[in-house]
Amino acid sequence: MILMNPGAAEASQNVEKPLGEPGRAVVSLDLDADYLQRREANFQPLTPINFLLRSAQVFADRTAIIYGDIRYSWREYERRCRRLASAIRDAGVRSGETVAVLSPNTPAMLEAHFGIPMSGAILTTVNTRLDASAIAFILAHNEARMVIVDRDYAALAQNAIAQLEKRPIIVEIADPHAAAPPQPCDHEYEAFLASADPEGPIIWPNDEFDTIALNYTSGTTGNPKGALYHHRGTYLNAVGQALHHQLTSDSIYYWTLPMFHCNGWCFPWALAAVGATHVCARRVDPAEIFDAIADHGVTHLCGAPTVLGMMIDYATLSDIKLDRSVALTTAGAAPPASTLLKVEEIGFKLRHVYGSTELHGVVSICDWHSEWDALPAEERSRKLSRQGVATVTTDRMIVADPVSLEPVPADGHSMGEILFRCSMGMKGYLKNPEATEDAFAGGWYHTGDLAVLHPDGYAEIKDRSKDIIISGGENISSIEIEDVLFQHPGVNHASVVPMKDERWGETPAAFVELKPGFEHVSGDELLEFCRPRLAKFKLPRRFIFGPIERTATGKVQKHHLRARLAP
Amino acid sequence: MILMNPGAAEASQNVEKPLGEPGRAVVSLDLDADYLQRREANFQPLTPINFLLRSAQVFADRTAIIYGDIRYSWREYERRCRRLASAIRDAGVRSGETVAVLSPNTPAMLEAHFGIPMSGAILTTVNTRLDASAIAFILAHNEARMVIVDRDYAALAQNAIAQLEKRPIIVEIADPHAAAPPQPCDHEYEAFLASADPEGPIIWPNDEFDTIALNYTSGTTGNPKGALYHHRGTYLNAVGQALHHQLTSDSIYYWTLPMFHCNGWCFPWALAAVGATHVCARRVDPAEIFDAIADHGVTHLCGAPTVLGMMIDYATLSDIKLDRSVALTTAGAAPPASTLLKVEEIGFKLRHVYGSTELHGVVSICDWHSEWDALPAEERSRKLSRQGVATVTTDRMIVADPVSLEPVPADGHSMGEILFRCSMGMKGYLKNPEATEDAFAGGWYHTGDLAVLHPDGYAEIKDRSKDIIISGGENISSIEIEDVLFQHPGVNHASVVPMKDERWGETPAAFVELKPGFEHVSGDELLEFCRPRLAKFKLPRRFIFGPIERTATGKVQKHHLRARLAP
Repeated sequence: MILMNPGAAEASQNVEKPLGEPGRAVVSLDLDADYLQRREANFQPLTPINFLLRSAQVFADRTAIIYGDIRYSWREYERRCRRLASAIRDAGVRSGETVAVLSPNTPAMLEAHFGIPMSGAILTTVNTRLDASAIAFILAHNEARMVIVDRDYAALAQNAIAQLEKRPIIVEIADPHAAAPPQPCDHEYEAFLASADPEGPIIWPNDEFDTIALNYTSGTTGNPKGALYHHRGTYLNAVGQALHHQLTSDSIYYWTLPMFHCNGWCFPWALAAVGATHVCARRVDPAEIFDAIADHGVTHLCGAPTVLGMMIDYATLSDIKLDRSVALTTAGAAPPASTLLKVEEIGFKLRHVYGSTELHGVVSICDWHSEWDALPAEERSRKLSRQGVATVTTDRMIVADPVSLEPVPADGHSMGEILFRCSMGMKGYLKNPEATEDAFAGGWYHTGDLAVLHPDGYAEIKDRSKDIIISGGENISSIEIEDVLFQHPGVNHASVVPMKDERWGETPAAFVELKPGFEHVSGDELLEFCRPRLAKFKLPRRFIFGPIERTATGKVQKHHLRARLAP
Repeated sequence: MILMNPGAAEASQNVEKPLGEPGRAVVSLDLDADYLQRREANFQPLTPINFLLRSAQVFADRTAIIYGDIRYSWREYERRCRRLASAIRDAGVRSGETVAVLSPNTPAMLEAHFGIPMSGAILTTVNTRLDASAIAFILAHNEARMVIVDRDYAALAQNAIAQLEKRPIIVEIADPHAAAPPQPCDHEYEAFLASADPEGPIIWPNDEFDTIALNYTSGTTGNPKGALYHHRGTYLNAVGQALHHQLTSDSIYYWTLPMFHCNGWCFPWALAAVGATHVCARRVDPAEIFDAIADHGVTHLCGAPTVLGMMIDYATLSDIKLDRSVALTTAGAAPPASTLLKVEEIGFKLRHVYGSTELHGVVSICDWHSEWDALPAEERSRKLSRQGVATVTTDRMIVADPVSLEPVPADGHSMGEILFRCSMGMKGYLKNPEATEDAFAGGWYHTGDLAVLHPDGYAEIKDRSKDIIISGGENISSIEIEDVLFQHPGVNHASVVPMKDERWGETPAAFVELKPGFEHVSGDELLEFCRPRLAKFKLPRRFIFGPIERTATGKVQKHHLRARLAP
C-alpha cells in the first residue's frame, strides 16, 4: 500500500489497496480446499430484512411506531410488512419489478421499506414535492408496476399516471391524517393488507448485491438519475448509522428527514436493527416536534439547516429549553457558530454528516472528539462545520485530484474532489451506463464536491466542482463567500456563481434574498460588509437581489442563476 | 418462507429462507447489465484492518492502549502494527502462512491482531495455559512459520518447539512487566519492529472470505481443532459487539478476557472500529481491576463467572462501591440471583452473552429490555440467565431438532440444539474435513448445546448434548441439578454426569468440590437440600466428593468424570 501523505502530523490517505502477492502457496495447509469454501451455514447474504424479523422476535411487544394515536409494536409492524409483501405478490408484481411510493413520513412509508423488498420488488420512494410530469418521468423510467400513494398525493399521482403509456396498479393509503378526498384506485391500503397472508413467503436476495431500492437524484440539471441500492449497502449503512448515533432499543427517533430522500438515510433499517421507536409525522412543524420530544421522549432526530432554523425560531419565541440532551443530526451547509450556540442552548447535541444519493445516503461524519466540547463556540463551530471522515462502515474516502487521483496534502487549503471507494457505492444508474461510468471514473465514486483536508484528517467542502470560481488562476469557493454573506443580519439566503470577466476570466456574482424588514440593504452595504472578511479577489463584483430558484428538494439551481448573468 | 411457530404469542423461528422465484424477467430494466455489477468503487472486501487505519486517522492522538506506564496513541499503535507487518514479511513469512502468538493481554498481543493479518499471514493465538506438548501439537498442525512469545512463556515455547520437526522463527517479547529471564531467540520484538518499515505494503484480503485467524478449540476430548476465521466474520462480529455494548470513542475497555480465546471475542477489532481505549493487563487481579476502574475510567470489561466471583470477594472485603455504572459482560454459566445482586451492588451492569470458537466468538446476547430493570432481583436474574437471541449481525439462530431441523415450540421446556446459520460461521476446521462436515450438518452450525426457547423468544441452555441425562425416557439437564447444588453455601463446584442404571437407563451422579470449612457436608445433606428444589427423578443418586478435573481453559472434563463412574 502507498501512503501518499506519510508525514507524522498529516493524516494518511490510503489510495491504493494493492492486492496481496500470491506468495508461496502453503500447500500442506490447503486453505483453498473445497470444504473450506462458502456454504449456507457460514455465508448468508447481508440484508436489512433480517433486522425486522429480529426485532419482531426480540422486541415483539415494544413500540416500533408512534403516529398520532396509532401505536404498532415490532410484532405488529412485522405482521403488516409481511401482509404488504404478500399483497404485492398477490397483485401480480414480480421479483425485480418496481413499486413506487408517494407518501409523507407515515407508518405506511415505514412498511414500504420492508414489505416491498420482502415481496422481491424494488422500493422506489418518490419525492412528494415533484410536479406531475417529473413524477411521470420517474414512473415511466422505472416501469413502476404499482404505485402506493397517500391520499393527499393521490390527485398528483393520478395526474402523473395519466401521462404514462402503461397504467400501474394504484394502492391508495387512506391515512387518518390525510385531508384530501379519495381518488379512484385499485386497492385501499388497509383492505389490501387485510386481504393478504402475514405468513406468505419472504423473497430473500439471492445475492447481497441484489437491488433493494431505487432512489432518484434531485439533479439540478437534466432528468433525475435513478441510483440502484443493494442489500449489502443498505445493511452496512444502517449498521453504521446505528453505531455512530448510538441507537439502542431505548432510542426514540422523530421523522423530519423525508424517507423519500435516500430512504431517510437508511434510518428505517437502522432503527429496526436495534429495535428503537419511530415517531412519524406528516409535516415538519416545530410545535409538533417539541411536543413529541416532551410527550414521547424523543432522543434523536435529523434536520436540514432550514429545519434547524425553524426550530430555533420556534424555541426562541416559545422560550423552550429541553430538560435533557437530544441528538440532532444535520447535513448540507455547516451551521454558523451563532446557530450552533442557539441549538445547544435549546438542549440539542448537534452532529454533522455528509453523503449522497449514490452512496446509500450518509457516508461521512464529523466524528466528534469529546475533548472538543470544552472549546469556545467559534472553534466548536469550525470543527463541526467539516464534513469529516468516512463512517465506520464506509471503506475509503479521499480528497484528491479527480483525474490523477493524487490526494491533496492535509494542509487545510489545497482543494480536491471528495472520492469514495466503498461497499456503500450504488450498483449504478438505472438504464444509464454512460452516467454510471462517469460517476465511477478511475475506480472511485466522484461526488462532485470540492474540499480541503485539514491537518487532523477531516475534510471540509468548499464548493461543488462545477460551482468553483476561477479568477485570475485562483480558485474561489462560492461557499466561502456565501458563508460571509449569511453572517449579515439582513441576508436570508445568498448564492454565489461565477460571472464572465474579460480580465480575470471569472469573478464572483452574488444573488441575495433579504429578510423582511431589511429591504433597504444595498449591494454597497454588503460589499463593505464583505471587505474585512474576504480577500480582495474574492469580493463579489455584482449583487443581484430577489428570489432565488430552487429545486423541489430545496437545492439552489445555480445553472439558472448563471443563465441570468449571461449577456 | 415458513414460520414454524406462527402463533402470535410465540416467537417465530425462520428455518427456511427459500430463494426468490425467478419471476418474470423485467427485461427492459436490465438489472443484470454488466455495468451494474460489482466493481472496486462499490464493492470492497469487509475487513477489520480498515478499522485501525480509520482510527489512526480520526483519533490519531487519542489513547489507544494503556499498559502500566505505557501509552500508545492510535497513530502510534497503527505505526507499530505496520512495522510488525513489514518485519514479518522481511523475515520471509509469506501470505497464508501462520504466525503463532503466545502472550498475555499485552500491547504486543493487540499489535498481533492487526500486524499479522496486514502481513498476509494468519494470526494464531495460543492458550498460554496449555502444556508444551499441546502447544507443540498446535504449532505442528498449523505449520507455524513464526512464533511471537512473551518472555514469561519463552521457556514453555522452547519446550514446545523442541518437539517440532521444523523450527519456526522465534520472536521474543521482552515485555517490561515480564519476570522470566530471556531465552534464545531470532529476534527481540522491539528491535524486530524498529528494524522494519512503517510504510511497507499492507496485504489486503483478495476476498472477504479469506482467512484472517486460526483459533483452536479447547475440546474436552481429543486433539484441539483449528477453526479458521475469515475477514468478513471478524468484521461483522466486531461491528456487532460495538453496537450491542454501545462502544464509542470514549469507551475504556479493561482486558480480563484472554485474547487467545476467540481473539478476545473480536474486541481488539471492535475497539478499533470506534477508536476506544484498551487497558492491558498481564493477569486477572481484582485489586488491579478496581484500580484501573478508578484511575483510567474503565467503562467496559468482560469476565468469566470465576472472574465475577473474584471481583465480588475483593469488593466485599475492601468495601468497594463504584461511583458510576460499569458494563460487565459474562458468558458461560448464568450467575445466580445472589451473585447478580452483589455485582449490581458494587456498581456493575451485568450482561450475558454466548458463542463459540467456531462462530468468531459471541453470536448471541441476552438483549436487555430496560423495563426489566424494575423487576425483583430473582426475576431479573432469571431473565439474564438466558443465552438470549442472535446478535444484530448474526443471521439465523434457532433451537431445533438437530436432525429434522424442526424447531422446538417456544414453551420454555421443550429442548432442542442451538443451531446457527450466519456469516459468523468459521470457514471450517483446518485439515479436518470430516469434523467440518459434522459441525455444519444439514446446513447449520451445531453448537452441541441443548436449550429451551422461552415464550418471549429467548433461548436458555440446559445442557451440552453429550451431557444430557436420559432417565426412564425423561431428559434431565445436568446444568439444572448443578444450579441447585451451587445454591448450597458449602458447594464450591458441582458437576453432574449420567450414571448407568439398570432400571432407568441413566441416573444423575454429582461430583462436588466443597468450600474450605464445609468439609463436613455429606451426600445425605446435599440430597435433602436438593429434594425440595428438584423433581424426584432428577435427584442425584450418588455424590462423589473431591477435586474435579478441568482443561487449561477451566472447562470441566465430564468424560473423565464419566470414566470414573464406569464399573
